[in-house]
Amino acid sequence: MSEGLFSVCDDRKELEEGDVCAPRFDANGLITCVVQDAKSGLVLMVAYMNQEALALTIQTRRAHYWSRSRGKLWIKGESSGLTQAVVELRTDCDQDCLLMKVEVGSTQSGATASCHVGYPGCFYRQIALGSDAKQGPVKLKTVEERVFDPKEVYGS
Amino acid sequence: MSEGLFSVCDDRKELEEGDVCAPRFDANGLITCVVQDAKSGLVLMVAYMNQEALALTIQTRRAHYWSRSRGKLWIKGESSGLTQAVVELRTDCDQDCLLMKVEVGSTQSGATASCHVGYPGCFYRQIALGSDAKQGPVKLKTVEERVFDPKEVYGS
Repeated sequence: MSEGLFSVCDDRKELEEGDVCAPRFDANGLITCVVQDAKSGLVLMVAYMNQEALALTIQTRRAHYWSRSRGKLWIKGESSGLTQAVVELRTDCDQDCLLMKVEVGSTQSGATASCHVGYPGCFYRQIALGSDAKQGPVKLKTVEERVFDPKEVYGS
Repeated sequence: MSEGLFSVCDDRKELEEGDVCAPRFDANGLITCVVQDAKSGLVLMVAYMNQEALALTIQTRRAHYWSRSRGKLWIKGESSGLTQAVVELRTDCDQDCLLMKVEVGSTQSGATASCHVGYPGCFYRQIALGSDAKQGPVKLKTVEERVFDPKEVYGS
């Protein structure tokens, strides 16, 4: 279903400044997608799409990804309810990365989130910087609140 | 200089919920870094760090990347003035991706930006969605204003 949707472009100026969608999938056939909450601007997660996932995302306006760990197409929220409705999709200068602004669905208990660990987004831990990290090992600090219990949403 | 800074962690629960910084560099020794403007929330760019670039970024609070195209360490803004001062650095749940909030420097003419094409960020083009993309080929639309002329900043 993605036949003819995407172009191939070898001209750098056209790739960077043109109007042709020519996503540059990597050696594994994947492109990186940064997912941002359309309202709050919170960066929720980074995921990967193959050509089919990108085509389905564009055509249905529902986030589809390629799960590298499971080796299969993944419709975000299919089991958890934490769907992502696509508000806007953008490409970067050299078309090897996407930015997707989404509205996030809810779990049965009403939590709105995108990370399977139970936080609104995947980036819930800060890395120590500067003098706090001079000695090593570098430490992390959790700075977000959990909004759901993964066991209740995904089972054990 | 990155000796002993980072840990290795094989335990999923510790990796996802612990306080140990154990970045999971890929087969090429790189980790993906999403860069966000600390004030506006604009997603500026996606770049890659090897262990040395990450260590230097953490210790100096200046963005350092690994340039995949040039095959060398890249201090952001070294030639253009478009530096990135690190306000906050976060890791994601499975520690294979970073989110960095930055304050962006300026070109000599006073433009504040992060993309070499002259836009504030790299994601200046929208991808057509839904019925606008049903027929293909999918088109892009530039939706941001250029803030500097690359020729003036980088030469020809």
